[in-house]
Order: sequence, then C-alpha cells, then structure tokens
Amino acid sequence: MKNTIFVLEEGSPKYQQIYEKFKSFIERGDIRPNDRLPSIRQLADSLHVSRNTTLTAYEQLVAEGYIRGEGRKGYFVNEVEPLLFQENENPHRKKQTALKKMPVINFRGDAVDQAHFPLKIWRRMANQVLTWQDSFRYGEPFGEEVLREQIAKYLFQSRGVKTNANAIIIGSSTQQMLVYLGQILKEEFQSIIVEDPGYDGAREAFQFHRFEFETLPVHETGADLSQLKQMNSRLLYVTPSHQSPIGVSLSIQQRQMLIQWVNERCGYIIEDDYDSEFRYTQKPFPALASIDAARVIYLGNFSKSFLPGLRLAYMVLPEPILSQYQKHFAYFESSTSLLSQLTMAKFMESGEWNRHIKRMRLVYKRKVSHLVAELRKHFGPTITIIGEQSGLYLLIKLHLNHSEEWLIQRASSCGVKVYPTSLYFMNNHTDRPIIKIGFSHLSIDEIDLGVELLKKAWVGEKDIETPTAKGGGLSRSENL
Amino acid sequence: MKNTIFVLEEGSPKYQQIYEKFKSFIERGDIRPNDRLPSIRQLADSLHVSRNTTLTAYEQLVAEGYIRGEGRKGYFVNEVEPLLFQENENPHRKKQTALKKMPVINFRGDAVDQAHFPLKIWRRMANQVLTWQDSFRYGEPFGEEVLREQIAKYLFQSRGVKTNANAIIIGSSTQQMLVYLGQILKEEFQSIIVEDPGYDGAREAFQFHRFEFETLPVHETGADLSQLKQMNSRLLYVTPSHQSPIGVSLSIQQRQMLIQWVNERCGYIIEDDYDSEFRYTQKPFPALASIDAARVIYLGNFSKSFLPGLRLAYMVLPEPILSQYQKHFAYFESSTSLLSQLTMAKFMESGEWNRHIKRMRLVYKRKVSHLVAELRKHFGPTITIIGEQSGLYLLIKLHLNHSEEWLIQRASSCGVKVYPTSLYFMNNHTDRPIIKIGFSHLSIDEIDLGVELLKKAWVGEKDIETPTAKGGGLSRSENL
Repeated sequence: MKNTIFVLEEGSPKYQQIYEKFKSFIERGDIRPNDRLPSIRQLADSLHVSRNTTLTAYEQLVAEGYIRGEGRKGYFVNEVEPLLFQENENPHRKKQTALKKMPVINFRGDAVDQAHFPLKIWRRMANQVLTWQDSFRYGEPFGEEVLREQIAKYLFQSRGVKTNANAIIIGSSTQQMLVYLGQILKEEFQSIIVEDPGYDGAREAFQFHRFEFETLPVHETGADLSQLKQMNSRLLYVTPSHQSPIGVSLSIQQRQMLIQWVNERCGYIIEDDYDSEFRYTQKPFPALASIDAARVIYLGNFSKSFLPGLRLAYMVLPEPILSQYQKHFAYFESSTSLLSQLTMAKFMESGEWNRHIKRMRLVYKRKVSHLVAELRKHFGPTITIIGEQSGLYLLIKLHLNHSEEWLIQRASSCGVKVYPTSLYFMNNHTDRPIIKIGFSHLSIDEIDLGVELLKKAWVGEKDIETPTAKGGGLSRSENL
Repeated sequence: MKNTIFVLEEGSPKYQQIYEKFKSFIERGDIRPNDRLPSIRQLADSLHVSRNTTLTAYEQLVAEGYIRGEGRKGYFVNEVEPLLFQENENPHRKKQTALKKMPVINFRGDAVDQAHFPLKIWRRMANQVLTWQDSFRYGEPFGEEVLREQIAKYLFQSRGVKTNANAIIIGSSTQQMLVYLGQILKEEFQSIIVEDPGYDGAREAFQFHRFEFETLPVHETGADLSQLKQMNSRLLYVTPSHQSPIGVSLSIQQRQMLIQWVNERCGYIIEDDYDSEFRYTQKPFPALASIDAARVIYLGNFSKSFLPGLRLAYMVLPEPILSQYQKHFAYFESSTSLLSQLTMAKFMESGEWNRHIKRMRLVYKRKVSHLVAELRKHFGPTITIIGEQSGLYLLIKLHLNHSEEWLIQRASSCGVKVYPTSLYFMNNHTDRPIIKIGFSHLSIDEIDLGVELLKKAWVGEKDIETPTAKGGGLSRSENL
C-alpha cells in the first residue's frame, strides 16, 4: 500500500474523491484485508490536502465498515465480501453509499462554511467546560445566566438593542421558541400577520396554536406596509433586516412606521433577526427592537452565524409577555444543551465570537461576490439576482419559459442541486420562477463549477427537451 | 508563591476548598498581583488531588476575575481592588461567590456522578464529530438515523422493546417531547390519568394542552390499579420501572393488567422509562412496551444514565400515532444538538455506552448501599427508607412531629440541602413528611458527612426550636 498515488480532480469535494478511490481500491482487491493504509498525515502531505480532508475520508470508510482504526497503530483494511457492496440491507450504510449518486454541487441553504470554523478554540473551550462540576447537572429553565449576559452585551453592541440577561430566554430553535411563546400569545391574539412570501417554518409554529393568517405582500422592492392599515390582526411576524426569502431590508422610515403601527394597535411585533450578522454592502441596520422595544419580541439564533447543529437560539421578551412566560414555563426544563450554552458563553466572553463574525463576514462576502459575478457572466440578462446584499443564499429569477420544477430537475440531471421558493409563497405569486441558491459551504472552485453546470442545464444546449411531469417534486424537507 | 502549602479538610468538596484558600490569599494580599500560581499539575501533586480538581478551582477563580490563564505560561494573579470583594454588582459574580454560603452537602437529585464520567473517550469522539462535514448542517427533523438505529438496538437488548429506527423520534427532553406529542393526542383525548404522587414535569406538559387529570394513587406498596376500571380516560401516563417519586416497580402481573386495560379501552399508555438503567437489587424489569407495544408510547432519555446537560431524549411511537406525528412535524426543525446526537451514536456503536452503564450501576449501587447503611445507623426506626432498589435518589419518611418545611429548613441551617416531595402529590396525601435525597454526585465521604449533619439537624439536639414561619419555602425550581 505504500505506492498508492492518485490525482485529485477539480470539482467534487476532495474528501469525497479520496473516499471513492480507497473504496474502489478495496472493492477491486487492490488493497487487501489487514493492509495498513497511509497515515492521515502521510496521505495529506502526498495529496497536498489538509489532514481534516483525509481524516474525513477515513472516517467515512470506517463508518461504512471498509476500514478500521486501531488507535496509534493506524488504519487497516477490513475483511469484506465483494458481494456486500451490491446487496447491503443496512439503511444507514445505504444512505452513505448513495452519496455517489448525489449531484456534484449542492447549492444547499442549510449549511455553513466548515473551512473557517474556529475548530481548535471551540474544542478547547468545550473540553474545558466538560471538566466543570457545573456541567453535570440540569440547566436553568430559561438558559444559563452567563450566556444570557453575553447575549445582552452583544445585542447592545451589534444591534443597538438595550436589554438585560433577565429578559432573555434561551431556546433551541426559532420554531421551538415560537411554539412556547405562542402558548402565551394565543391568550390575547387569534390571528397573526405574516410576510408573503415568508419563512414557512414560522408559519408551521403559528399553526401549532391554530393562529389565523393575514398576509403582508413582499416584493423585490420591499414590503408593502400600506396594507397593514386594512388588516385586523394586532400581531405581526417580520424579518426586517433580511427578509426571508426575498432578502430586502426595511428602511429606517419603514421601521419607524412599524413601531408606530404596533404602538397604536397595542399589539406586538415578532422581529426574527435570524442572520443579521452577514450584511455585505452597508453596515447592518439596527434592529426594530433598538428603536422601541416596548412592543417588540426579538428573536435571534446561532444557526447561520455559527453552527446550525448546536441548536442555540434566544428571544428578548418585553413586559408583560416576559412575566407571563416566566410564570408559565417556570417548571419546564430547558431544551438546550447546557454544555453548548456554557461553551458559547466562554467563546463570547473571550472575544472569539466577535472575531468569528468579522472573519465570516469577509469569507461569505468573497463567496457571494464571486457567485454574483459568475452568474452575471454566464447568464447575463436571462436572470435577475435578488438579495445578494446579505445572508447565506441568494435568489435568481429566470426569464425563461420554464417551470420551477423543470429548472430544479434539469439542474439535478446535470449534477447541481438548487432549491425552490414556491413553498414560501401564500397568495402573492411571482410572474417567473425564483430559484434559491445557498453558497455558504462551497469553495470558490465549487461555485465556479456549479454555475457552469447550471448554465449547461438551463441554457447551454439548444435542443433542450420540454418539461416532463416525471419524477415528482422534491420533498419539502429537502428544500429548506 | 512557591511555598503555599495548605491542608485539605474532609467535608466540603476539595476544589471548593482550594478555590476558597486561593481567594483568601489574594484578598488578604498573601499572593500579589502578577504572581504566578503553581501549575495545575504541581498543585494537584502537592495536595494529592486530581488535576481536574485543581483545574476546576482555577477555572472558578478565572471566571470570577481573581486570576488569569496565559496559555502555557500558567496562571497569574490579577490586579484587584480589595473593595471589589464587598461591592460587586455583577450578578454572575455575585452568584458564584454566593457558593460559600450554600450548604456544605447538597443532596440534589438533578446531577450525575462526575468522577466516573468517560471524559477522555467522549471528548475524543466529540472532537472527531466536529471535523465531519456532516456536522455543519441542520439535523434531521426526527433525529439522526445513526443514533436512532443505535437506540433501537439498545432498547431491544436491554429493555426487550422490539422497534426500528423509523419509529423512534429524538427530542431534547421528556417535557419537550410530551408538548409535541400532546399536539397529536389532544385530537383524540381530552383527559389523562397520571400517577399520584407523580412527576410534576409531565403534568406541566399535559397542562400545556389543557388535558384534564384523573389520578391513580400510588402507595409505598405500589400503584392501586384496581381503580383504573372506574376512570373515564383512555390515556395513562406511568413510570412502571421506577415510579417517580415513590420508587416502586410494577410486577409482571400488573404490567399485563395494564396492557389488557389499554387494549380493551383502545387507549394509549405513555411509559416513561426515565432511569431504568439503574436497578440494584434485581435485573431491570422488561418494559411495558416489550409485552405489547401496539398501544404503548415509550419514552427514554440520557439525562440520568449519561448527562442531563446534553438534553437528549427519545420516544418510540406505535402506529397510527407515528404517522400522525411524522406528518404533523415534518417541517419542524429538530430541537436537539446534532453534534450530541452524532457523538452519542458513535459512543453507543463503539460499545462504550454499555460499558458506561455497567460501570455506573456499580458506582451508584455502592453509593446507595452506603447511604442506606448510614441512614439506618444514625436514624434507626425514626425513618422509613423508600425506593432504595433503583434510581439516583431515595425517599425517607420521618416518624417525627415536624413538617416537611421545618425539616428542610432545619437541615439547611446545619449545612445540608434536602428536597421536598409534596409537590409531587395531588390528592393522595401522605401521613408523614417524605424527604427526597439524591446521592449520584456525592462521594462516600460526602454522604457520611451529609447524614451526620442531618442527624444533628433533625434529632441530634434535645432542645430544638419549633418550626418558624420565617424564610419562606424553597422555590419550586430548586426542588427538582
């Protein structure tokens, strides 16, 4: 096994190529059972990739049973029947090997950049937290005070929101918090105004409590706030900093108009500030809650800005909602990892959080600029790009005579996965299909390849077949 | 600072003594600003304690601002004004320094043993998971398949429950799962039968959906199942393996009776198997769901058996509840850390989970036997011990003329914190006060000291003052 040298190609992720190569070596018998593989380090050096890349490839092979790790001795090939590769009934393994058939480039919107994650620092802090006696208990019902203090400080510095640890409730996701909050709000409100198009996950949480919906139309130029006057509800859910999914922001005049509206109606605004950290063209706009927080319920989370898998979110409640919430949920256990909370508190307190946000803003800015340039170069006036000023995805409206479904399936058959937006719309339909493209986790090379493949899929060949009804739509859970 | 030698005493935790000593050295000026402290290792060696103990003490001092860590250089004393120690407005710091005034021994029931936690193995696995590309995304709505598969395997091996990954839903706590599950159940059921006394947290979750309660009396000898016939509800919440809080188990005859009852009524039983891993006198009884799972909703979690702060729980749903749940919550994000799920899957797959459970069963068995022996030695027939066969706490019924409140306050004034059980009772009152004593996190020495102090508090002095109304009750959230 000493001379296994192969060349990595552009295109698919490197760890995946390494994984595929070794898998085929083992399947074809080029490497035999109990042979030792090159070490993580040797392989990384010889292929000019990071050790994380080779480790990830090996981990995948271990997970699928091709190889085993024997501690410091290294990695060895397992005895495997050749037939196993064809007929494998283990659903987990099935799913893993299905990777091969997935599109080469996945413009998913539900991931974050891995390359610039502060792995060492986070690990060190997480490892320290695990030695504390304080980590071996149930957490506080409304979240750990040390983290709530750090969030209060951060919200003031970066969003202009004046609050204190006591008014902050820590939860595990926006939806979980909306389900719990809805329990309080439904005592006073039967209906809620939501943006159209808007975040479907929030609508699901409101439906949990059977709120009726009124819809506020949002266009590419912004939300049509004039319609609020005719509406009956006194409760409004909005994403003012980066409208989900259109990407527009409310101007200061519009923000003031909203504050005035809610004060006149004695209602509440739920401000979901889910990815305000990443604004590329101007400084982030101050939050609605920074203008007047008396009737604003502010929601934030760490999913886009740090790591979605942590499941760490928070809300700032105004009185009297806060008192009602504290009374109602005093005997509910926190649903958020105590360890993640303590580690994040340490991470924020040390200044690493601010450094991380600054770093990621530059990383994502570079990616989005590149993506926009590539899209313009390949598509020209065939598309309109929407929402490139902020966030971790953008939308493209296609001026072609094709349906959203066709565009997605056609891209998929060319090896690119892109996402629909129709699920966000309620009554306010769009004239042309709008496709969602996430870029946060892709490298510049992957973005290049993805856009090229999209060009090939959508306009590259003259004799493209017309839309087929075959294959059905994507399931909704894949489309987030 | 080279010759700072002091002697650790029996009684309060060692890390706390070290912390207190250094704090007073700094406050009195015995150690001066910018002095270097002994290293974690040096101090541990000279005091004959583990490095975790000295690290914990130093971490506490760092958190409070007394000292700072400078990486490999070591720990140094900060410049601090003497006044700071008296007038500190930082609520976090206040809370930390309030440690001093807390009881010496806290028989809390909401913690787990730290000394035998598989720190290195868990850390290694958690650190690996953080390098996977798979960790940088949102998790699956119903939990990661790799973990659900491991849980299915474990449930069959250890609880006799035959299920598969697809029927398992991963959540973050029993309460969170009951809130979501209640959304489905309330379509068919308006009321639920709960144990009396019983787990208050479950009642809170049922109240979220305004279920009406019927109560099933549980005595020290067991639950009175004959009463089920007269009840109207077809939905029952029970803790058959280790009744919460009484600690009795349902016999196989009683289990079969329950299964027959629920099949006749076409209802559902919610079986909360929250700490079945720790049974000390016989082998764990098989779960209700192992007899007939058609009408049993099985709940389990990792809070007692592993780490409460992880917030990892699961339920096994029978059809048609499963289909309804999957349909209803398909668009809800998971509220459970993806990283914790992936790490736990690895931990279980590697066999470490089974090793951990075996190890902890012995650790806890030793602690509970010791606690029971000490209680018998000091209290004799003055108390009845309830529920020592399993779980991480036991109950003592006191045959003295004192109220629950007096017993708790009196113990507290002698430096021991014990917990009430009255909050678990609804209609089925007890003749004598019953006190809850958790032992999982205490060392044998701490248990000895705690029981001695309880003796002093409750029967040690002849001229004990009569109960006072002063000081108020403990807040409920402290009593879990």
